[in-house]
Amino acid sequence: MYQYDYLFDFTKNVFMKMGCSENESTIIAEVFLAAELRDHASHGMIRIKDYYELWKAKRINTNPHVAIVHESPSTAVVDGDNAIGMVAARRSMEIAIEKAKKAGTGWVATRNSNHFGIAGYYAIMALEFDMIGICLTNANPLVAPTFSISRMMGTNPIAIAVPAMKQPPFIADFATTPIARGKLAVAEKKGEKVPFGFVQDKNGLPSNDPTILKYGGSMLTLGGDRIHGSHKGYCLSSIVDIFSAIFSGANFGPFVPPSVAYLPVLEKKVGEGTGHFFGAMRIDAFQPATEFKTKMDEWIETFRSAKPDQDHEKVLIPGDPEREAEERNMRDGIKLVPAIKDDLITIARELHIDFD
Amino acid sequence: MYQYDYLFDFTKNVFMKMGCSENESTIIAEVFLAAELRDHASHGMIRIKDYYELWKAKRINTNPHVAIVHESPSTAVVDGDNAIGMVAARRSMEIAIEKAKKAGTGWVATRNSNHFGIAGYYAIMALEFDMIGICLTNANPLVAPTFSISRMMGTNPIAIAVPAMKQPPFIADFATTPIARGKLAVAEKKGEKVPFGFVQDKNGLPSNDPTILKYGGSMLTLGGDRIHGSHKGYCLSSIVDIFSAIFSGANFGPFVPPSVAYLPVLEKKVGEGTGHFFGAMRIDAFQPATEFKTKMDEWIETFRSAKPDQDHEKVLIPGDPEREAEERNMRDGIKLVPAIKDDLITIARELHIDFD
Repeated sequence: MYQYDYLFDFTKNVFMKMGCSENESTIIAEVFLAAELRDHASHGMIRIKDYYELWKAKRINTNPHVAIVHESPSTAVVDGDNAIGMVAARRSMEIAIEKAKKAGTGWVATRNSNHFGIAGYYAIMALEFDMIGICLTNANPLVAPTFSISRMMGTNPIAIAVPAMKQPPFIADFATTPIARGKLAVAEKKGEKVPFGFVQDKNGLPSNDPTILKYGGSMLTLGGDRIHGSHKGYCLSSIVDIFSAIFSGANFGPFVPPSVAYLPVLEKKVGEGTGHFFGAMRIDAFQPATEFKTKMDEWIETFRSAKPDQDHEKVLIPGDPEREAEERNMRDGIKLVPAIKDDLITIARELHIDFD
Repeated sequence: MYQYDYLFDFTKNVFMKMGCSENESTIIAEVFLAAELRDHASHGMIRIKDYYELWKAKRINTNPHVAIVHESPSTAVVDGDNAIGMVAARRSMEIAIEKAKKAGTGWVATRNSNHFGIAGYYAIMALEFDMIGICLTNANPLVAPTFSISRMMGTNPIAIAVPAMKQPPFIADFATTPIARGKLAVAEKKGEKVPFGFVQDKNGLPSNDPTILKYGGSMLTLGGDRIHGSHKGYCLSSIVDIFSAIFSGANFGPFVPPSVAYLPVLEKKVGEGTGHFFGAMRIDAFQPATEFKTKMDEWIETFRSAKPDQDHEKVLIPGDPEREAEERNMRDGIKLVPAIKDDLITIARELHIDFD
């Protein structure tokens, strides 16, 4: 078990060694550790190696000039200058919040960025300003649209955070596929099958093989099949892609660049890097903040008191499981599996910093 | 088969007889007929009776004063004065578009409204202004959150319309449940079962009975069960509810009033009427309009050329099926089932207008 502070300092040091400023390295470490605390380990320490390898391959810029390239009172387009995603994303969300302070809402589309960790981190940034926060991003293509066998979209997540008064905030942060990709890797490592409805084989036939992506298979959209609404998941994924890439001028759909160095740079480019989309909505642009947040308390209490089914003790509010994990992991420490620990030891040795 | 113009004029006359202005009656008829054309008959002529009965019961206002009650440069809250939903919604979307012209984006939350027909109609209004249109609404509770057997939410739809250049626009318009409620009614009338994954019984057990809502059952959220991502459908439904009701001051979740007169007025009120949420985003607040729309053409062409699976000839773009239906129904006419025709004849007789 590792303490939060130990992993935080280590992560910060890794990125400072890669040329990021102290401020930027702090942001990056915050996002990695936020993922670990929330039990989204698939976006946590396991990913440090990916960023490190991209940096060694000179495919990512650790000294970027992130800048607004176009704006209106409530909108902006940001060029991330091929930054580590967290750096471009954090600055973009700050701009959305600034816009919202003046115009009521702020909306920022970001191009020329890279994988930014968990979307929820940026949505949550809005809460302390009594704003709703929104964050979308596209991602490298693994998912087939309804009726298709081509990998056209990423797991394109949506995160929305809504402040309340006495209750903890409502925080939704989810991929627009039935599962995150990491779940397939976990099943593969355990030698287990996955339920039908997550993936299909190269011919579009149902599959329960978590390794099927290696053999021409693809992930399915939320809904699973047409009868159960996969076309709605396809709509959601598409909207995330359009907002992230067409608004910003980033690569869309099948042209989103890989977030790992072991996959080659794509031959065809239709824009700049990976795209994100951020929103900040001042709640007092609609209702007095106290009234809105008190009403959200009532909403949360109402849904929390819904009758559970016979297999469950309670009905959850989006954000509940992650908050419980956060408290537990902060108290008990964060566990890293041996393979990840070994990777980090290698990186530490190469960068001449300590890790054990 | 009925011609578009015949049903349009009839519908307009019905609402004028109910006291709506000519302009408002025209809007209402447009929305009803848009649903019929797009093969969303569940939101078409079948619903006229519901509005008529609500009016007879004095539960809906046909002479409303729809007004802004709060605003910022990019936002407004609108009070619908218990109007027929189409009247409040059309005005609200116009306000969102006006806001977007000045601030880049416009966002309107509407309270004290009623059922407004198809959400897509209002999203599509933005297209002619080179804007993306967004429309959400909450609805009377039929849907259980993940792990629950309580009906807490409506089928809470999301509609988003995105303009393109040579290609037709991208138009997504979908309930945040695997199916719209109307599909259950159709299966019931045919005496058929429905696939598992749409509904559960009063104990939360899987059911394939389309009549189960009458016996304490509930609809499931998009995803169906927890393993297949129903918590993501629950997040989506919740977000639609929060944006529609908490931003506006409408009733939320289980307190959304029924849209039919045969169900009693709810005892508990937590806000005013039904709530909607509208967004308009000027695309040149992000990219020059020509550039954006040309890129959308490329997006659409890319996805249209995805490889179909063995059971399908082509991959669809959101909006394709409805556009094909629109052309067919405008050309060949609109079919009404006998029961609906009988209802309309009764209404026509009571209001002293012609229908046959």
